[in-house]
Amino acid sequence: MEQPRTRKLVAEYLGSMLLAALVIGSGIAAQRLSPADTGLQLTENAAATAAGLFALILMFGPISGAHFNPVVSFVDAAFGGLPWRHALAYLPTQIAGCISGAVLANLMFATTPVSISTTHRATAAHGLAEVVATAGLILMIFSLVRSGRAERAPAAVGAYIGAAYWFTSSTSFANPAITIGRMFSDTFSGIAPASVPLFLAAQILGGALALLGVRVLYPGMKPAQAADVVVPHVAATSR
Amino acid sequence: MEQPRTRKLVAEYLGSMLLAALVIGSGIAAQRLSPADTGLQLTENAAATAAGLFALILMFGPISGAHFNPVVSFVDAAFGGLPWRHALAYLPTQIAGCISGAVLANLMFATTPVSISTTHRATAAHGLAEVVATAGLILMIFSLVRSGRAERAPAAVGAYIGAAYWFTSSTSFANPAITIGRMFSDTFSGIAPASVPLFLAAQILGGALALLGVRVLYPGMKPAQAADVVVPHVAATSR
Amino acid sequence: MEQPRTRKLVAEYLGSMLLAALVIGSGIAAQRLSPADTGLQLTENAAATAAGLFALILMFGPISGAHFNPVVSFVDAAFGGLPWRHALAYLPTQIAGCISGAVLANLMFATTPVSISTTHRATAAHGLAEVVATAGLILMIFSLVRSGRAERAPAAVGAYIGAAYWFTSSTSFANPAITIGRMFSDTFSGIAPASVPLFLAAQILGGALALLGVRVLYPGMKPAQAADVVVPHVAATSR
Amino acid sequence: MEQPRTRKLVAEYLGSMLLAALVIGSGIAAQRLSPADTGLQLTENAAATAAGLFALILMFGPISGAHFNPVVSFVDAAFGGLPWRHALAYLPTQIAGCISGAVLANLMFATTPVSISTTHRATAAHGLAEVVATAGLILMIFSLVRSGRAERAPAAVGAYIGAAYWFTSSTSFANPAITIGRMFSDTFSGIAPASVPLFLAAQILGGALALLGVRVLYPGMKPAQAADVVVPHVAATSR
Repeated sequence: MEQPRTRKLVAEYLGSMLLAALVIGSGIAAQRLSPADTGLQLTENAAATAAGLFALILMFGPISGAHFNPVVSFVDAAFGGLPWRHALAYLPTQIAGCISGAVLANLMFATTPVSISTTHRATAAHGLAEVVATAGLILMIFSLVRSGRAERAPAAVGAYIGAAYWFTSSTSFANPAITIGRMFSDTFSGIAPASVPLFLAAQILGGALALLGVRVLYPGMKPAQAADVVVPHVAATSR
Repeated sequence: MEQPRTRKLVAEYLGSMLLAALVIGSGIAAQRLSPADTGLQLTENAAATAAGLFALILMFGPISGAHFNPVVSFVDAAFGGLPWRHALAYLPTQIAGCISGAVLANLMFATTPVSISTTHRATAAHGLAEVVATAGLILMIFSLVRSGRAERAPAAVGAYIGAAYWFTSSTSFANPAITIGRMFSDTFSGIAPASVPLFLAAQILGGALALLGVRVLYPGMKPAQAADVVVPHVAATSR
Repeated sequence: MEQPRTRKLVAEYLGSMLLAALVIGSGIAAQRLSPADTGLQLTENAAATAAGLFALILMFGPISGAHFNPVVSFVDAAFGGLPWRHALAYLPTQIAGCISGAVLANLMFATTPVSISTTHRATAAHGLAEVVATAGLILMIFSLVRSGRAERAPAAVGAYIGAAYWFTSSTSFANPAITIGRMFSDTFSGIAPASVPLFLAAQILGGALALLGVRVLYPGMKPAQAADVVVPHVAATSR
Repeated sequence: MEQPRTRKLVAEYLGSMLLAALVIGSGIAAQRLSPADTGLQLTENAAATAAGLFALILMFGPISGAHFNPVVSFVDAAFGGLPWRHALAYLPTQIAGCISGAVLANLMFATTPVSISTTHRATAAHGLAEVVATAGLILMIFSLVRSGRAERAPAAVGAYIGAAYWFTSSTSFANPAITIGRMFSDTFSGIAPASVPLFLAAQILGGALALLGVRVLYPGMKPAQAADVVVPHVAATSR
């Protein structure tokens, strides 16, 4: 019945907030500064997200694992890396963090603090794209964890997401918490509430496929303490 | 007569599929979102490919070596790093993966699932470019392997290919499997079937030149188990 | 009463000079070469800054810690990593370096050696953005230091600042010395003197919040010799 | 009177050739594909150069040190890291390599194999920029070498040059061999012969300043075998 230490939740909250501010804030800046070319806007948004995600995972990794993503936390729990109670406590923390980050981005760019997105994204192709994006993300993270290379996760996740903004038609949300947060800013990175259920379902399916994939590709390795393995030598003190 | 373990083939198949989806999908997105400037399209396509390739090699490296490329596999076999039978089994797997990835990209972007490219690329200059691109790629990979630095391959290959999209006139296919896969999407990254034989011949020639170059530059080193050296500490379990 | 060794001050001076030349010089180039799209200018400015900052921190890290930023130095002093006298000596050195770098950039681009910026940036939203930008930067740096990963600071700081150019509306100055230096070039990266006090206040507030955040997130770790930990194995000789 | 082993010269030749093909080839592609915006051309040229340089240094570092630049070789000799005779033998090899690379780029892009550049670049501001660019490059390389971090040189040099394309008005040639090679292609990256002497003089001056700077900043460290330190564990076999 162990509850996660408060500072793990603080880390997930702050990291999720900064992640949403990063994704949404850079989207607003791109939209304003490069009005003539949507591709250039996505280039700017993707590059900022990739670089910033690398920094955020380095920043909070040793505390909470720097998940910022319920799919990561629950798959981690399924592999025995995170107690289920922690994953359950992370979930609302991550969502609250992402919503706070949307508000923060709106404030930093002097727009209405809360605006509901009107960008509809629900198509079958986008649903497929979210399955692929999430499955690839989760497969990559746990490939690194289960082969003892978790210290490479910050760069790998940043690079993967930066690429997935481009190779998936949905621009790779791949994270239910950020999907919910992105409802609260009617700007470049927003998503209309009506499109959210499809995205969430696709992300959960992608996570389940990845869980299966990890079991096939990395069998016979004992469940590592995934969340703490990011910085093994800090693990002892960070519990 | 040892056959490669199934999960090595699964890794090569999935990695080749995601590689093709990455290259072709980001090309479709670039073409749609930046219609006014071909250079910007190639910037977007190259950056996504470089970052994504880094992630994919990290993801599948410990399992199969993350070749996704028959030239890599056969040169590896020539150096004794991969049994010849494995290289032979990798070949159709890589091709099937790349074709699947083309279809996946087409589906994610809601285009016809299979369309044959009409982009003709067969010129003498492009042939020369493919020789150079492939020779450089293979020389770099085996320079890393034979000097005990294979853990740097993911970043090195991503960066090399990202650069080679620009410094070669052919945009550096450098891989027979992806060349074949790129026939199946009549979009930015496609290649017309009539141009494929020249590209394949150039890539094979480039691989042969690189094999010679590695022997000259890195002599006297015993043939490493190249495919497994990517993550040495996992090698024992991944066989 | 120990004074910092001269070569620490030389390193902070040269590094701050090159940092300002980097930020301002790339801004001038971007403004001249991409007149049609402000977003493209910021992309160029941000990418150059991120890559160059990575190089500059590698270059001067083992000597002085490569702070180039009074907030970093004073927070380091607060954690016991740098003697207070050193932080006090770093301060004018960093400011003089940044002003020199502005002049150097102006000279390299054949403009008036000194021109006072007329770019007004003082809004409440920009003030909030500077608080967030600075707090994130300081939190990241000391997360790395206090978890024994300071060798990752060069890449992390470069990536963070590159991202923060985009996700904050202020383009993330996050550094009082560079803020002062950027007054002396009436070009893309400049800031009008009237806007400077708000930026400085916001940066100091951000640093204070980060100091608190580090205490909450990384408690119970003894104050490391932060400035020297960047390259631990050189620390013995660099004192 | 020891002469460098042949394969060191082969490595310097091939590396210099590929470096020139990279710089010039990506310049030609950028010029053709992004005709409307010079800044975008430089973005493409700089990103390709940074990524490709990282790959080339990884590729040839263990053999010859991957200098591709006479200033690096002679400063290395001055610090005792490379025998003077080797530096003297490297010089014509690097120049020949860079000229070959210019021809190779011209051929890959189906232009006249040799054309003399008509791009005049000789101004006082450009001269100052080349001094700064070269001094910074050399200072960075030998900071890494003398503090035992030479394995970070590939990423550091790539990032530095990518940034210096932007923060110096000369676009940072910083290398006499590539300056000479770039005369032989009348394209984006070319330099008219009349502008070359100023650039060479500025680069030599920059190298001398950096040599002084390294002595001030990294004193008391014994002259490392710089050329071999890139991959210490290969040093024994690569002599």
